[in-house]
Amino acid sequence: MTFQEVISTISEQQSGLPFGGEVAQYIDELRLVNPNKFGVYLKSVSGEEAYFGDAFEAFSIQSIAKVLALSLVYKELGESLWKRVGVEPSGNPFNSLVQLEYDSGIPRNPFINAGALVVCDIILSLYPNPEKAFLAFANSVSGHSDIVFNERIAESEKKNGFRNAALVNLMKSFGNIKNEVEAVLDFYFKLCSITLSCKDLAEIFQYLSIHGKHPLNGNSIISESQTKRINAIMQTCGFYDEAGEFTFKVGLPGKSGVGGGIIAIHPNQYTIAVWSPRLNKKGNSAKGMAFLEEFTTMTTLSIF
Amino acid sequence: MTFQEVISTISEQQSGLPFGGEVAQYIDELRLVNPNKFGVYLKSVSGEEAYFGDAFEAFSIQSIAKVLALSLVYKELGESLWKRVGVEPSGNPFNSLVQLEYDSGIPRNPFINAGALVVCDIILSLYPNPEKAFLAFANSVSGHSDIVFNERIAESEKKNGFRNAALVNLMKSFGNIKNEVEAVLDFYFKLCSITLSCKDLAEIFQYLSIHGKHPLNGNSIISESQTKRINAIMQTCGFYDEAGEFTFKVGLPGKSGVGGGIIAIHPNQYTIAVWSPRLNKKGNSAKGMAFLEEFTTMTTLSIF
Amino acid sequence: MTFQEVISTISEQQSGLPFGGEVAQYIDELRLVNPNKFGVYLKSVSGEEAYFGDAFEAFSIQSIAKVLALSLVYKELGESLWKRVGVEPSGNPFNSLVQLEYDSGIPRNPFINAGALVVCDIILSLYPNPEKAFLAFANSVSGHSDIVFNERIAESEKKNGFRNAALVNLMKSFGNIKNEVEAVLDFYFKLCSITLSCKDLAEIFQYLSIHGKHPLNGNSIISESQTKRINAIMQTCGFYDEAGEFTFKVGLPGKSGVGGGIIAIHPNQYTIAVWSPRLNKKGNSAKGMAFLEEFTTMTTLSIF
Amino acid sequence: MTFQEVISTISEQQSGLPFGGEVAQYIDELRLVNPNKFGVYLKSVSGEEAYFGDAFEAFSIQSIAKVLALSLVYKELGESLWKRVGVEPSGNPFNSLVQLEYDSGIPRNPFINAGALVVCDIILSLYPNPEKAFLAFANSVSGHSDIVFNERIAESEKKNGFRNAALVNLMKSFGNIKNEVEAVLDFYFKLCSITLSCKDLAEIFQYLSIHGKHPLNGNSIISESQTKRINAIMQTCGFYDEAGEFTFKVGLPGKSGVGGGIIAIHPNQYTIAVWSPRLNKKGNSAKGMAFLEEFTTMTTLSIF
Repeated sequence: MTFQEVISTISEQQSGLPFGGEVAQYIDELRLVNPNKFGVYLKSVSGEEAYFGDAFEAFSIQSIAKVLALSLVYKELGESLWKRVGVEPSGNPFNSLVQLEYDSGIPRNPFINAGALVVCDIILSLYPNPEKAFLAFANSVSGHSDIVFNERIAESEKKNGFRNAALVNLMKSFGNIKNEVEAVLDFYFKLCSITLSCKDLAEIFQYLSIHGKHPLNGNSIISESQTKRINAIMQTCGFYDEAGEFTFKVGLPGKSGVGGGIIAIHPNQYTIAVWSPRLNKKGNSAKGMAFLEEFTTMTTLSIF
Repeated sequence: MTFQEVISTISEQQSGLPFGGEVAQYIDELRLVNPNKFGVYLKSVSGEEAYFGDAFEAFSIQSIAKVLALSLVYKELGESLWKRVGVEPSGNPFNSLVQLEYDSGIPRNPFINAGALVVCDIILSLYPNPEKAFLAFANSVSGHSDIVFNERIAESEKKNGFRNAALVNLMKSFGNIKNEVEAVLDFYFKLCSITLSCKDLAEIFQYLSIHGKHPLNGNSIISESQTKRINAIMQTCGFYDEAGEFTFKVGLPGKSGVGGGIIAIHPNQYTIAVWSPRLNKKGNSAKGMAFLEEFTTMTTLSIF
Repeated sequence: MTFQEVISTISEQQSGLPFGGEVAQYIDELRLVNPNKFGVYLKSVSGEEAYFGDAFEAFSIQSIAKVLALSLVYKELGESLWKRVGVEPSGNPFNSLVQLEYDSGIPRNPFINAGALVVCDIILSLYPNPEKAFLAFANSVSGHSDIVFNERIAESEKKNGFRNAALVNLMKSFGNIKNEVEAVLDFYFKLCSITLSCKDLAEIFQYLSIHGKHPLNGNSIISESQTKRINAIMQTCGFYDEAGEFTFKVGLPGKSGVGGGIIAIHPNQYTIAVWSPRLNKKGNSAKGMAFLEEFTTMTTLSIF
Repeated sequence: MTFQEVISTISEQQSGLPFGGEVAQYIDELRLVNPNKFGVYLKSVSGEEAYFGDAFEAFSIQSIAKVLALSLVYKELGESLWKRVGVEPSGNPFNSLVQLEYDSGIPRNPFINAGALVVCDIILSLYPNPEKAFLAFANSVSGHSDIVFNERIAESEKKNGFRNAALVNLMKSFGNIKNEVEAVLDFYFKLCSITLSCKDLAEIFQYLSIHGKHPLNGNSIISESQTKRINAIMQTCGFYDEAGEFTFKVGLPGKSGVGGGIIAIHPNQYTIAVWSPRLNKKGNSAKGMAFLEEFTTMTTLSIF
């Protein structure tokens, strides 16, 4: 079967099924999304494309953008990055603040909120115009030119961002935040505000499936080793408190967002993005997880 | 022996002794204080006064001001205050953030930082001009008219206040902070910026030694029951992680500040304030503790 | 009013009132007690006695026995005791294990379970026949001769004592338990198994109201300073997570047990014991607390 | 290059290099091992074998045995196993006890000590003679017949096993341990006492590289899905607090033990076991990690 046939088959099989879950409620921009949206887009390293449903409609990618931010700072700082953030999975969310206390302000990995806030802080230190620099990087990795921040979403996030403010203040008390607290939070909320389609995501993250190379011109965006490490971190830390479950069921490195999006990478094979806004109890797209599980089962292309 | 004789005797006995300890270092206004300052002032309920040393020199009272803030909100809210803050001693400081997580944003007592921040938030909600209202109350309880905030100290505190900002943001994420984070922090740092002398402190807190009555006109500032409760909270929670030690050694309700001041109350007997800037490892005035221990031993007026 | 008149008055006033609460359920010996039992017994330093209700009926004193165990080891070790257990109140019970981790196996105070287990371990190290030595001490402090362990209660406690076993094992991993885990647990459960009446308790703890002296022969059981410290620890740590509340409402040093008993000490004045099996949510006798609150209010003999 | 050529090349390259690290010290049986031992053994799914150094010498496999125990209970209970133990990586070890508190006695995964203790408890419930049943399973998966417990190591482990005893008691207080505490601990320490060579390990764990099939007769030991899940758990949880690091550097599912052994699985390709007793700060074999990193780099057979 071609990828398109697999995607169509599963999408039809699952089209009538109830996957449960609730759309994220804490901001209007997520709460008011049509909960029945569903899109999937695959881009293989050989250039094959396959898709289904709302694959071309932009949605709030939220934490998926953290992979781009990590790629940018890793490219700039190299291995010295790991002095400020770890690479190990974290325990349950209850422990996030006490973990920072225990580890003197060093977050466990770059995908928990504390870690992504440190990554944002580094970007602020690196560039005179950090927002512009980040967008330039995000656009450059795939030949896109239209990635922008959504000010309205960023504003809504900020109004509910007190826990993130607690994290960044605590880390600043330990000296692991170098810029102004407000500036770090503003950048973080902007990072999480980007809206993209499944097609966009599958294209943008191609470099992670081809050893860090640009899909169009073959230039190195990040090194092969850095690509391997980012994939490894996605494998162990990409799905909040469900990384183990995703590793088992889907068996691919990936990253989810509370907007219901998931990007998954099969190194040397393809990138695949899915979108379905209803979230399971751990905060990951319920139908998105089920689709990817079936997809790797049918293609028998899991890494395990 | 009269109180004056006891105070003079102990002060002379202890004058040459090394009590160790370090002056608080985190802001200039505390770091640059002469570490050898020492003052003590007692005011008995019968009107007797006794003092020694730098008893008339103003210093940064810091957390001691939290007793005034608590008195004001308790007077206004009555027992409903305890829905937003507890009355139990807290464990070690390591647990302060995890405790807030576990108790859904309700601090253990009004003297730990988190609790005092909630008290500040309540004051902001109560008055159109909270700073003026607080100073009016502080001045009124003793016939003083000159208590003011020290803007320079407040400013320095704020520059180092990231842990407090973490606490207030975390509590706001739980809904236990009603005003803007910045406004709560600003008021809190102003509260901690007040400078007063030992004489001032002994006079201002007289109401806690006379059942909540005003020392000059006999009017009720807070009720007898409220006075008893505030004294009880000072007994169990007034000395950071050394409340048990102070209860044993001194045996009086009291409250310390990182400026090296301590106010202690002997209900129906007297108020006594001491000041010596060097702090022991738990953050309380080393010589101040030693003086009060000897004082209650010689007067055999401990409550135990 | 005489003490007897006060006790009779309050007992009658409160006799019809519902104080709610539930009898401890975790072992048969507590669960099957008549929940309506109520007794009170006061012994003043001048020899006055007053009582009401089931004051002469023995009940399971549980944690109240920890005060006797503490007195014995404090008498033997002096201040070196505090190297193995602290004197500060603890936070909420959730933190007990993590507190031991953080403080490398040193419990916060001798009345939380971990602290009492260390006290038991010390008794095991001190005597060739620890049970006999403890009972001899317990009997000697008041001229009693009939205090014994209740094997059946001890056995039941042990069957439910897994959390205590976790605590003692964790402390042993830090080197703060010197004897066999099983031996420490066995002794601890025996200590908690003692049954006494309100009259017994008021008599046995007289030494804490008279500076550590034996009530009959005036010999020193523990020093005056040790007495003061034990009272101080009871004040700040004697009522699980309700020490602050008890300090406010009753204003006396004391210790409660899950059998519904409470002993309270008014230094230089009296000892008073109450018993009512229904416990409030914090694990203290609901009616017992209410009775003592009214008692110190009517006698205006609170220490605050 | 053949596997043998790769193994020989790396072994020679690394033979003079200092990898640092310390041999585990807590029991004699580990402390007294020659720290310079080094062995490696590979068994490919096509039957190819390759080895180097002390590949045929038995050593204490410690936690590696937990993979066998997990396989056995997963085979027997199926998915209902996950009611009693999770599949998510845990945070740092400091949190292990507080995590159990927070999650009501359910460990995060079967490879942290708490989780392995639950697995042992299940084995005790499943069989009248659990030790015999476990050894029969362990021997059967590979045609071995000589796997036994090492009583002396088990005894030594037990003498230092207080933290494990704390864990099992805490879980029992939550009802997640069904058998006697002592019996669970005894079985656990026996499980960890097994000694095997690199060759043995590479042969025994072949079933995890061939979809759960027996390498000799092709019978299903565990299902294909169960195999995938166990590999996934090894990937995210197999290396204490270094699972993320191992995932990046080596990129294979695996499990280490404090004896200095590591087993790694490349699904559909091979199993490989290494042994070098010196441990890095996270408790994993320092040279073993370095060897496997170089091995997957040279063979470019990482899963990322």
